[in-house]
Amino acid sequence: MRVLVPFDAATPKSRLSSLFDDGERRALAAAMLADTLAALKKHDPLVLATAPIEVDAPVVVDDRPLTEAVNGALAGALPTAVVMADLPLATPAAIKRLVAPDVDVAVAPGLGGGTNAIVVRDPAFTVDYHGASVRDHRRIAREAGLSTATVDSFRLAVDVDEPTDLAEVLLHGDGTAAEWLRDCGRIESTDGRVQFIRTTE
Amino acid sequence: MRVLVPFDAATPKSRLSSLFDDGERRALAAAMLADTLAALKKHDPLVLATAPIEVDAPVVVDDRPLTEAVNGALAGALPTAVVMADLPLATPAAIKRLVAPDVDVAVAPGLGGGTNAIVVRDPAFTVDYHGASVRDHRRIAREAGLSTATVDSFRLAVDVDEPTDLAEVLLHGDGTAAEWLRDCGRIESTDGRVQFIRTTE
Repeated sequence: MRVLVPFDAATPKSRLSSLFDDGERRALAAAMLADTLAALKKHDPLVLATAPIEVDAPVVVDDRPLTEAVNGALAGALPTAVVMADLPLATPAAIKRLVAPDVDVAVAPGLGGGTNAIVVRDPAFTVDYHGASVRDHRRIAREAGLSTATVDSFRLAVDVDEPTDLAEVLLHGDGTAAEWLRDCGRIESTDGRVQFIRTTE
Repeated sequence: MRVLVPFDAATPKSRLSSLFDDGERRALAAAMLADTLAALKKHDPLVLATAPIEVDAPVVVDDRPLTEAVNGALAGALPTAVVMADLPLATPAAIKRLVAPDVDVAVAPGLGGGTNAIVVRDPAFTVDYHGASVRDHRRIAREAGLSTATVDSFRLAVDVDEPTDLAEVLLHGDGTAAEWLRDCGRIESTDGRVQFIRTTE
């Protein structure tokens, strides 16, 4: 199965700007991409980047918005998996569960309505990453009469967009991004959920 | 396997007080308990409540704090699963994956470091629900030389404590709590993750 990993090389992770400057966010995004690619290693992933980048995988550059670029790539060959580049908790075992269901469209939801990974086996399906995409993807599949499955994975659900996600990486990660975060912060327990606290200037 | 569902009958879900008053939070907590028990139905769950409650399952009342009450119950009989009462996305399939690993201690992490479900098969293990309990539970098991597994489930990871969790219930739930939430609000898409918006007074 072909595996695509879209990557926004331009302005990564703006919702983390209260914690990290531009260069730091770029470094964190690169670390997360490396972790995601490591989990996908046996599937020979192809990075679909908005601009040329240096990474340990083949790269195709397509500067169109995410939805258009992915739909362009899906038209090329099926089955294809599309896995977001900010899944530092992904593991080979979680990816195995992603590609297992024998259905037209398998979706691994992200926190807050996103679609963190999707496997498409039927050309009648197109993606739409705007808004609550997991809901839209289920609707698009249903309207096209396609069979679907939802992949129940915490490791694939945690994409790193918000400060609260950083604590999950420290709690459950052991890759490049977790190491990067451990070098500049730590977890603090509160009455509720734990938080990531930056400890370096 | 014996399955315990601890339930705080007194002051549920205080972190949702910006959205719901006391009575509403009690009703939502009861709906989530019903959903959790429905997912556990074939395991004949036993509710471990801080005070007498009306619910469609046997209830044992123990007014001690959570950690003490669960450790008291674990001393009674093993194997035992302890499943939190605020998992409205839990399904029988997710529970099947929880009880599957043949290890001394299996943990299903919650968002932000919690332990949403745990299966204990060895009397050397005790729980500690304070702070980042998922990390503490791994440590306690390691120090006792016990084998462990982590259950990778989004459906078990989403406990409902914070307003952001309500959107997950609307996106992925089809039980009593999802219905209750649909009656008083809806999902709103933003640039980032979707949010639950209350629409009734």
